[in-house]
Amino acid sequence: MGERIFTAAVIVIGNEILSGRTQDTNLRDIAIALGSWGIRVGEARMIPDIESTIVAVVNEVRVRYDYVLTTGGIGPTHDDITAASIAKAFGVELIEHPQIAEFLRTRRAASPDVMAARLRMARVPRGAGLIDNSTGGPPGFCIENVYVMAGIPVVMRAMLASLEHQLQGGAVMQSRSMTIYTGESTIARQLEAIQLAYPEIEIGSYPFMKEDRAGTTLVMRGTDVVQLDAVERQVRDMVIQAGHTPM
Amino acid sequence: MGERIFTAAVIVIGNEILSGRTQDTNLRDIAIALGSWGIRVGEARMIPDIESTIVAVVNEVRVRYDYVLTTGGIGPTHDDITAASIAKAFGVELIEHPQIAEFLRTRRAASPDVMAARLRMARVPRGAGLIDNSTGGPPGFCIENVYVMAGIPVVMRAMLASLEHQLQGGAVMQSRSMTIYTGESTIARQLEAIQLAYPEIEIGSYPFMKEDRAGTTLVMRGTDVVQLDAVERQVRDMVIQAGHTPM
Repeated sequence: MGERIFTAAVIVIGNEILSGRTQDTNLRDIAIALGSWGIRVGEARMIPDIESTIVAVVNEVRVRYDYVLTTGGIGPTHDDITAASIAKAFGVELIEHPQIAEFLRTRRAASPDVMAARLRMARVPRGAGLIDNSTGGPPGFCIENVYVMAGIPVVMRAMLASLEHQLQGGAVMQSRSMTIYTGESTIARQLEAIQLAYPEIEIGSYPFMKEDRAGTTLVMRGTDVVQLDAVERQVRDMVIQAGHTPM
Repeated sequence: MGERIFTAAVIVIGNEILSGRTQDTNLRDIAIALGSWGIRVGEARMIPDIESTIVAVVNEVRVRYDYVLTTGGIGPTHDDITAASIAKAFGVELIEHPQIAEFLRTRRAASPDVMAARLRMARVPRGAGLIDNSTGGPPGFCIENVYVMAGIPVVMRAMLASLEHQLQGGAVMQSRSMTIYTGESTIARQLEAIQLAYPEIEIGSYPFMKEDRAGTTLVMRGTDVVQLDAVERQVRDMVIQAGHTPM
């Protein structure tokens, strides 16, 4: 169609993801939101809280995607090194953002130490813009095409929601799906034939086991609804002809 | 301690992860298993079903980690391109593995087409070894330090379990954790002081919101149990002194 495709990379930052202590759910929430805004997630990186790694990965992906969204590592403790790492990636100074600092100072602190720790959350790379946080906590920030969000899912989602009108997207990927209870092999050849006939529609076959029964979900995705509907009809006819019941 | 540290990268292959359709859980299962075998996951990559991407990412990480574990894309349909991509990454031919083919041929097929599709699952890079699959399906495979497993979680876990005695690990990372209901800022300075005194122990602070209450879980990780216990005592004392109740 010639329409510009918008892409993003997601970087999930945190040792707890790589140790298995925490199940990441942010990638999925981000992918669904961006998808609905016409932006495709091209890859995701789960990386540890190591400055050199964050710098290298951010610099690798920010030139390859329209947008980079990161989650994690922007709290007040010593292991929150994302803001400093992003500043280093861009070769700019880490500054205390006056607006965030003012916001943080409005809250009572038990001691100067506590306030000093809290003010770590005001540190952003020089030149950064802010990402609203409707949960009442401090904001995230963005610099060029890199959007830095919190790791706590409820806070991440609030920041993500505020990006809706900030990120430009293209045509939205539409999808159709149907589930059949059969092994994939029984429809593999016919499915491939349909895929070959419609290269612009992405046809995926996702097998699963449910109560010891093998099934597969066929997913068709594309931006051209006319083609998508045609593919859906062909897949449905094929499935029925092969003796299965599409659900 | 000078002991050798064993590392791994995880590659999750599949468009459905990046579209948000599917919530990946394989990374966490792999990270927990490898951790218990003394192998640390250094990074994870979520990538699409695109051959050139799979080839590039596999070749990038296999030289940087002791082990690479992949999940997804080894079924019988056209979008299952992992085996062919891995063969290309290693510059070897994709062959039909006689043992897998024989296994697949023992099962009745409705037609030659169905058997042909099923035999796609017998294709492995020349020289590959097999990864047992106790669920009754075809095996995964390994080539050099790359271990290729199914994407369906129950099948992936079966393959992963069979790797326990195949992958050599080092000292197992032990961990201690405690949860306190307070914002992180209230203990940030003291926590950093303890971290600075024990650089070999990794101290993480993981904030969360539970029923609108802010809490944080402090996690201490390391292979030296004596140091770990010392750090746990210091963190506990510090938390109590700061007026909180460790749980």
